[in-house]
Amino acid sequence: MSPGWSQTPAPTPKPALSPAEIVAAAPAGDWTDISPDDLLVMTLAPDASGKPRTVLIQLMPPPFSQGWVSNIRALAKAHWWDGLSVYRVQDNYVTQWGDAEGDDAKKAKALPAGLKTMPESDYTYHRSIPLDTRLGAMLSPPNTVSHFAGFVGGFPFAGTGTPDSVSNWPIHCYGMVGVARDMSPNTGTGAELYTVIGHAPRHLDRNIALAGRVIEGMAHLSSLPRGPGSLGVYTDAAMRVPIVSVRIASELPAAQQPHVQYLSTGSASFATYADARANRRDPFFIVPAGGADICNIPVPVRRKP
Amino acid sequence: MSPGWSQTPAPTPKPALSPAEIVAAAPAGDWTDISPDDLLVMTLAPDASGKPRTVLIQLMPPPFSQGWVSNIRALAKAHWWDGLSVYRVQDNYVTQWGDAEGDDAKKAKALPAGLKTMPESDYTYHRSIPLDTRLGAMLSPPNTVSHFAGFVGGFPFAGTGTPDSVSNWPIHCYGMVGVARDMSPNTGTGAELYTVIGHAPRHLDRNIALAGRVIEGMAHLSSLPRGPGSLGVYTDAAMRVPIVSVRIASELPAAQQPHVQYLSTGSASFATYADARANRRDPFFIVPAGGADICNIPVPVRRKP
Repeated sequence: MSPGWSQTPAPTPKPALSPAEIVAAAPAGDWTDISPDDLLVMTLAPDASGKPRTVLIQLMPPPFSQGWVSNIRALAKAHWWDGLSVYRVQDNYVTQWGDAEGDDAKKAKALPAGLKTMPESDYTYHRSIPLDTRLGAMLSPPNTVSHFAGFVGGFPFAGTGTPDSVSNWPIHCYGMVGVARDMSPNTGTGAELYTVIGHAPRHLDRNIALAGRVIEGMAHLSSLPRGPGSLGVYTDAAMRVPIVSVRIASELPAAQQPHVQYLSTGSASFATYADARANRRDPFFIVPAGGADICNIPVPVRRKP
Repeated sequence: MSPGWSQTPAPTPKPALSPAEIVAAAPAGDWTDISPDDLLVMTLAPDASGKPRTVLIQLMPPPFSQGWVSNIRALAKAHWWDGLSVYRVQDNYVTQWGDAEGDDAKKAKALPAGLKTMPESDYTYHRSIPLDTRLGAMLSPPNTVSHFAGFVGGFPFAGTGTPDSVSNWPIHCYGMVGVARDMSPNTGTGAELYTVIGHAPRHLDRNIALAGRVIEGMAHLSSLPRGPGSLGVYTDAAMRVPIVSVRIASELPAAQQPHVQYLSTGSASFATYADARANRRDPFFIVPAGGADICNIPVPVRRKP
């Protein structure tokens, strides 16, 4: 006895939405404004064809890395980066900027007074934090301790949690901004910064401070010529890309302040988006992966409509 | 009762070797020659400063993707790519080359006769294979089925193994070369190729064929300007990077054939290297990660000494 004979034809199933379509459909309330106090605007010299190059960096929110973030605000307020350069580009690893002569005591640019010195223990936050989203098994790699991964305030992090030990730390993904340093126990000031331009270098987690992420203009850093020197350093100073200025957005004239939002990592839209990134069902795909590395779930950003 | 009073001073422990130092110390017998029959030489037009740009691609070894690899050999023998271009660069995703006009039936370059058409089931190899190295839990992500990761003949792959089901497939990592395709059930011919220039897009695994990996000259593809069009396409034809030629190395005059080796993925040196990538103990590092995504264990390559 088929029940079908009196039914109207089933509607053609709609194709599943792609991650980009889910983001485009997110309601206004699922977006969070990024305060201009938490936004760095880095202006590079125009490219060879005269096109302007601006990079926006969202600073790391509490509770992570706040000593370095404080230094970075002080460096920007002092206009310390103005006239310095992007001086290192290592393929599948990092692009780095700051003072190309910083290792030469005679040529190094003096740092502003009052910068903080952070201990290595500050690479990790040693208390529990409220998670926007817990992705559990999505984190790569499953380490020797029990790890989980999630997002806080638009940033990816990992953590361990056992009855007698809780710790959490921000993690390296494409576009994350870290604080270059010398050998341990040096932890860097925030004057020399890098961004990840390749596969997530998980081995840097808990070994170096992360202070933000590039949210616009990433291609200006990722598509630069790779440096011929050791670690990708531009051995020829002519290769360096001049930094015109780095400013906290709130210090710019109001008309020049960019207004940017991220898709709230605690929102329903973000959860749907993360699931779609882990299980692509939009028409191009035939086999969903069944999981995603947290770095394959980049937090969406847009100019405020 | 201290036992120390009569002892000679302990020697200062040597710092642990870095992955690069382990590779440099690998004996000659741990390296495998790449046959010139398995090597593609892609010559791009010189860059803006006149410097030559050559990209070497190692073709995927059996048992994976051999239908597409066969097509790629036929396309190279037909000199099919000569005069075509790199026409798509999408940040943190892929750089793609072939016929920029391939979607336009009136302008598309005719393919050589006799190319094979592969079914989607060929994305995966449905039998057990001998592994060079099994990295077990290192693979990202831990999927809904029981997955493992390893290397075969210098290439990364993943697999499932249960008493009633064995399957294995090559995986997307930085520098891997895949076969662009139209919507399913199209599987591509191998005429349009891409390489991964960002975080490993795990969602493409088993959804698209992988046919090789870039082993030299990757920066010529990863540092190109990102395309302004949808999916990173160069909407302005003037942005395209001309392909001068693509040849199987064995078809070049003997003096022009590159002689390249990879660190045998079944060798003791490779096992030591992989462990060092997963647990950095060289002086810069303070906390070993305890694991590594397989894509963070790139297979070392060198010119034959």
